[in-house]
Amino acid sequence: MRRGPDFTLSTGPTTVSPTALSGFGRPVTYHYDPGFIELFRQVERDVATLLDTSHDVVLMPGEAALGLEAAMRALGRPGAHALAVVSGPYGASMADELRELSVEVTEVRSAYTGTVRIEDVAAALEKDPDIELLTVVHCESAAGTSNDVEALGRLAREHDVVVLVDAVASMGGTPLFPDEWGLDLCVGGAQKCLGGPVPLSLMSVGPRAWQLIDANPTAPTGSFLSLLDYRTKWKQGGRFPSAPPISDVYALAAVLEEVLEDGVATSFERHARAARACRAGVTGMGLDLWADDEHVAADSVTAAAIPDSVDADELVAHIRGRYQVMLSGGGGVGNLVRIGHMGETSRGMYVVVGLASLGQGLRDLGVEVDVGGGVDAAMATLAG
Amino acid sequence: MRRGPDFTLSTGPTTVSPTALSGFGRPVTYHYDPGFIELFRQVERDVATLLDTSHDVVLMPGEAALGLEAAMRALGRPGAHALAVVSGPYGASMADELRELSVEVTEVRSAYTGTVRIEDVAAALEKDPDIELLTVVHCESAAGTSNDVEALGRLAREHDVVVLVDAVASMGGTPLFPDEWGLDLCVGGAQKCLGGPVPLSLMSVGPRAWQLIDANPTAPTGSFLSLLDYRTKWKQGGRFPSAPPISDVYALAAVLEEVLEDGVATSFERHARAARACRAGVTGMGLDLWADDEHVAADSVTAAAIPDSVDADELVAHIRGRYQVMLSGGGGVGNLVRIGHMGETSRGMYVVVGLASLGQGLRDLGVEVDVGGGVDAAMATLAG
Amino acid sequence: MRRGPDFTLSTGPTTVSPTALSGFGRPVTYHYDPGFIELFRQVERDVATLLDTSHDVVLMPGEAALGLEAAMRALGRPGAHALAVVSGPYGASMADELRELSVEVTEVRSAYTGTVRIEDVAAALEKDPDIELLTVVHCESAAGTSNDVEALGRLAREHDVVVLVDAVASMGGTPLFPDEWGLDLCVGGAQKCLGGPVPLSLMSVGPRAWQLIDANPTAPTGSFLSLLDYRTKWKQGGRFPSAPPISDVYALAAVLEEVLEDGVATSFERHARAARACRAGVTGMGLDLWADDEHVAADSVTAAAIPDSVDADELVAHIRGRYQVMLSGGGGVGNLVRIGHMGETSRGMYVVVGLASLGQGLRDLGVEVDVGGGVDAAMATLAG
Amino acid sequence: MRRGPDFTLSTGPTTVSPTALSGFGRPVTYHYDPGFIELFRQVERDVATLLDTSHDVVLMPGEAALGLEAAMRALGRPGAHALAVVSGPYGASMADELRELSVEVTEVRSAYTGTVRIEDVAAALEKDPDIELLTVVHCESAAGTSNDVEALGRLAREHDVVVLVDAVASMGGTPLFPDEWGLDLCVGGAQKCLGGPVPLSLMSVGPRAWQLIDANPTAPTGSFLSLLDYRTKWKQGGRFPSAPPISDVYALAAVLEEVLEDGVATSFERHARAARACRAGVTGMGLDLWADDEHVAADSVTAAAIPDSVDADELVAHIRGRYQVMLSGGGGVGNLVRIGHMGETSRGMYVVVGLASLGQGLRDLGVEVDVGGGVDAAMATLAG
Repeated sequence: MRRGPDFTLSTGPTTVSPTALSGFGRPVTYHYDPGFIELFRQVERDVATLLDTSHDVVLMPGEAALGLEAAMRALGRPGAHALAVVSGPYGASMADELRELSVEVTEVRSAYTGTVRIEDVAAALEKDPDIELLTVVHCESAAGTSNDVEALGRLAREHDVVVLVDAVASMGGTPLFPDEWGLDLCVGGAQKCLGGPVPLSLMSVGPRAWQLIDANPTAPTGSFLSLLDYRTKWKQGGRFPSAPPISDVYALAAVLEEVLEDGVATSFERHARAARACRAGVTGMGLDLWADDEHVAADSVTAAAIPDSVDADELVAHIRGRYQVMLSGGGGVGNLVRIGHMGETSRGMYVVVGLASLGQGLRDLGVEVDVGGGVDAAMATLAG
Repeated sequence: MRRGPDFTLSTGPTTVSPTALSGFGRPVTYHYDPGFIELFRQVERDVATLLDTSHDVVLMPGEAALGLEAAMRALGRPGAHALAVVSGPYGASMADELRELSVEVTEVRSAYTGTVRIEDVAAALEKDPDIELLTVVHCESAAGTSNDVEALGRLAREHDVVVLVDAVASMGGTPLFPDEWGLDLCVGGAQKCLGGPVPLSLMSVGPRAWQLIDANPTAPTGSFLSLLDYRTKWKQGGRFPSAPPISDVYALAAVLEEVLEDGVATSFERHARAARACRAGVTGMGLDLWADDEHVAADSVTAAAIPDSVDADELVAHIRGRYQVMLSGGGGVGNLVRIGHMGETSRGMYVVVGLASLGQGLRDLGVEVDVGGGVDAAMATLAG
Repeated sequence: MRRGPDFTLSTGPTTVSPTALSGFGRPVTYHYDPGFIELFRQVERDVATLLDTSHDVVLMPGEAALGLEAAMRALGRPGAHALAVVSGPYGASMADELRELSVEVTEVRSAYTGTVRIEDVAAALEKDPDIELLTVVHCESAAGTSNDVEALGRLAREHDVVVLVDAVASMGGTPLFPDEWGLDLCVGGAQKCLGGPVPLSLMSVGPRAWQLIDANPTAPTGSFLSLLDYRTKWKQGGRFPSAPPISDVYALAAVLEEVLEDGVATSFERHARAARACRAGVTGMGLDLWADDEHVAADSVTAAAIPDSVDADELVAHIRGRYQVMLSGGGGVGNLVRIGHMGETSRGMYVVVGLASLGQGLRDLGVEVDVGGGVDAAMATLAG
Repeated sequence: MRRGPDFTLSTGPTTVSPTALSGFGRPVTYHYDPGFIELFRQVERDVATLLDTSHDVVLMPGEAALGLEAAMRALGRPGAHALAVVSGPYGASMADELRELSVEVTEVRSAYTGTVRIEDVAAALEKDPDIELLTVVHCESAAGTSNDVEALGRLAREHDVVVLVDAVASMGGTPLFPDEWGLDLCVGGAQKCLGGPVPLSLMSVGPRAWQLIDANPTAPTGSFLSLLDYRTKWKQGGRFPSAPPISDVYALAAVLEEVLEDGVATSFERHARAARACRAGVTGMGLDLWADDEHVAADSVTAAAIPDSVDADELVAHIRGRYQVMLSGGGGVGNLVRIGHMGETSRGMYVVVGLASLGQGLRDLGVEVDVGGGVDAAMATLAG
């Protein structure tokens, strides 16, 4: 088979670590092999440790899109009221899907370069005391921005509102503490900040979330989309609703073991440092960050605004073809290029590869940027 | 991480080949990397070649349970009439799920040791001309039996009935030709006869199936369960409804390439020979086949009836603990043990490992069996 | 690349474990990377633990043939007197090589089906008090026999004779304790009982061996063959005489870690049990062991005498072609076939694969053997 | 096991490609398995294709140090006359080793920053018509310089002198054509420009070399160091003198297949471009190249002179610790740091990682360098 690019610095799936590859390479076993079952339960415990949570951990066998849909169908009782924080396309999509489920949705929005104001959310919650569910995306990877889920969680807890967090692009790379912050159902993936496999949704489900689900007569059962099946069949009965993706579970086990051995905080710091370096590099070469400011910028992905003279997707294709580096294009949000620094690529020097190829790619297409200045600034940040 | 058993001869997920492991070990790339997209399309073409079909190939990102549910939700119009062939638990489950979708289901049943009579199916079709859908499981892996999907397909075509086949435990190991046989929607997996990854449903969808789906207003869209999304977003728009499981796609690409290079017929012959040897071994050691006779026995899994004095699941656990061989237990059908000979384990000598450990395990638990006689018969068959 | 046989049950290199493969798959690092140096030293310590020795451990970068030649050139002072135990071709070859070095060699021989008598060795040592070196092969893998190196070591110690042991086919699978038994220089490999990489000689060198080497003016220095270089350059100076085989070192590290975690005794017992089962199988199918009796038979390889009507090498080729099992042929000793049960293949059921394919292969070529009886006996032994 | 650095840009062993890792991960087979023998012969043919040579290809089972020693012992007849080109430590070491073998050696030297003058070599050859052997290092990786082996080979041919080339750090990355250029014995490795395994010496041996070897009564036989054994035992008799390193052979097969598929010239161009970019980067950040000029600088490794205020080895350790990039230190030649761009790391963006970490590392230690300017220049070169 032909080889891929030399460097994959996309926003996920992204470069996985040698540790993950070693997990993928393990012999496949039957899912009811006692060794596999033991390992699967260890992975569940490891996710709980990662999140410092006492909530149930559920590993649904599909990319996080499955986990998110399963969570919304479980929580989204027709006729119920919900508040959706919308600061990017993923947040908007959550609102849309809830409406499809006949939920009454109030949106609190911001431009897709920033985040909502907490006071706007508070006002909306106060205005409609029937709101029982708040949805929010932790890291809007399409825009390289983040929402303050800690503040939102604490606020929601005050109003006794259940919080559903799309933590796909943050879990493992950014602090996220469901119990402490009042986040009742979090859905993450491993193919981003954990540098792991795609087809597993890493979910923490707290008692208040289960309560809402139990109150929803339309919550799916007997379905690939059913979160409840995992409680009744697996948690209570020891039978998998469907065979888990064995090799991917091994890969997830391997990356979790490494992250926990290093310490979760180490991963958070590494992602934050890579993000600072990447932002310094983007502005250092004379480009604008897509995000309004440093505070709203995400730790796992940096979006650079691309001058109008160049089409971001063509730029990405050019860089892939000429320099064998795969970045991510605009994701429907604007003319921007995104450099992922997540999981494996949060390790320092990957950012430099992303910046140098981005800068030179722009230069190749006629945009004057200071490639050296960008790398210089990034390296100075990494050194700091 | 602790190692698994020395031999995994379960009914799937089962031992994967070195070829599959090599695919799993490839560096992960972005799903919109041009190289990945090219590979993904090649995999689709390879599945079409495997099935000798001109139907659309859809690779949905989940274990075949996802593909089956997606197919049934797409085809199962509320109020429509369907005929379900039920010769085992998977067939029964299809009937149940259709009823959940408010489809009017007629069942044609057999004992779970055999298969339905074609004339019974013909009679049922004639009796209710409104039947528009027939569901059937090709290999009932829980019972080690198979249904004659060729005859059923031809019959259904005569009645202009759309056929949905659960081909999970047969695809790649047993002849299956959708176009020639009139099988409008087939759902397979790679973790069985292809010795490949779990989280991909390999689906062929013909024009008559699409027609029925288009006529079903409840066919899901905008959902992880949506087959239609794959037509509109991916086939027509080049966008994945959700990120595919990259590493699993690489593994699937690798095993398909090998199977097609060797020739599909080689795989069919290998599975058939392993099955003959396994059956000769089971009877040669003095056990009964679970299946009524050789003709209804499956090519990918052999079920042996276990004497009442021993509990099949305890026997499986004993063999796993003492001989480091993982077989499959009864699967809810009866007191039986199943030896998978599918994909990698269809290669000759694996059957001997299964038989010798099964026989000695029984002997350990007080059942008199002729271990040597079983292996002798199996080897003589392999030699033939 | 085309795949190999389904089962490799040769006498080494033989099937390696998933653990070893995982080591091989690690990213390659520079040999002076601090992480690699730390790992290399850990491997040295692990070999010392395996042998329960305080002797220096030297890992020379070549198949054990390198280590053996290096040891003999280091120890073999021209004009010195040595005693060579010769019970098979490897022992004979050691004697020859010493003579090439102008050493005066006394041989104590046995037929290649047995082992020398200790009293003969004692007599020879007493007869020539100038003997300063005794050479012996622990497991003569070409004949499936073993020598009692414990007794020989203790005897040699009484006579103040330095002992050089070829432990290539025993190290890790058979008890071998240099310090306790008085074995001054042992040379092992990892591709046999450790189920690991080929190109590393695992050597323990005690003070009495170093003393003899220091007294040998022809001991090589500045050469790929130089054992002394490893003392001066690596042990004392921290510089590798040449770059070690990085990937193989990783594989060795992985298998050693696993063996030590399981406990060395576990490995010894597993090899002994597999050997008992294999011998029971060989005689149970009506063949003769090549070895004179059970006591002299090796724990890591069993040689079966093949009737004259069949050529052993043709039989091996037939079994490889028909059953995809690779055994070892006669190795120049006689018309015999050897089944390796070493490292990975010492795990129980591999022996059954070897026996069943050997038996059926003979049957295919017209020899009447009781295939079932052989497997039956082997299984009964494994069960015991 | 703990992970290595994020980037290994040493001068070898260096980062291997995913292709190589895939080879390493293959199941191990017996060296006399027919599949392995076929593959081994294919590898020999592939090396011949790589070198466009009709000479015999010999793969000796050890790091190139083995192949070089084997070649010198085979060619170095005591009392014979040889000319050694000495432009770096590897060349000097060849001269020393020949003297150890009692060969009369004439040295033609240059400073270790440059290369010898062809006319000096011509003069030396004319002065001593008894010279029968010329030794030269193609790439002096310790100094980042190269010798013009084409000119030297043609010159030697005119004088009927056999040429032995140390091509360890050039083979596969730099044009090297034994037949056309008159290079009678070339010794390469795979762990440099092929991005492959360590323990294999890739040797081409032409008829004139064999002639000289046959005339040397001290050429080793029956030894791990014997080149002749490979002719008599392997080439003529089909028996390996010792078991080859199976996994490393698989890795070599995989990288050769890839290089030949891409075309050898593609590899040469990639190495040359990476070298130009690296040199532009080194000078662009204000450092001096160690090599006298561009023409003598090697294609596979660039040496940067490090200001006296900083110790090169401490700098390397700092960069490894802070930025997780492993470069190579001075190699005994001077206060220099070497960036390998060989095999996998000849792919464009690796050079940027090396330069940025080198520059920032210097800056951290108080040396004013223009990190950005260096990367800028390198990127401009890669873009060209």
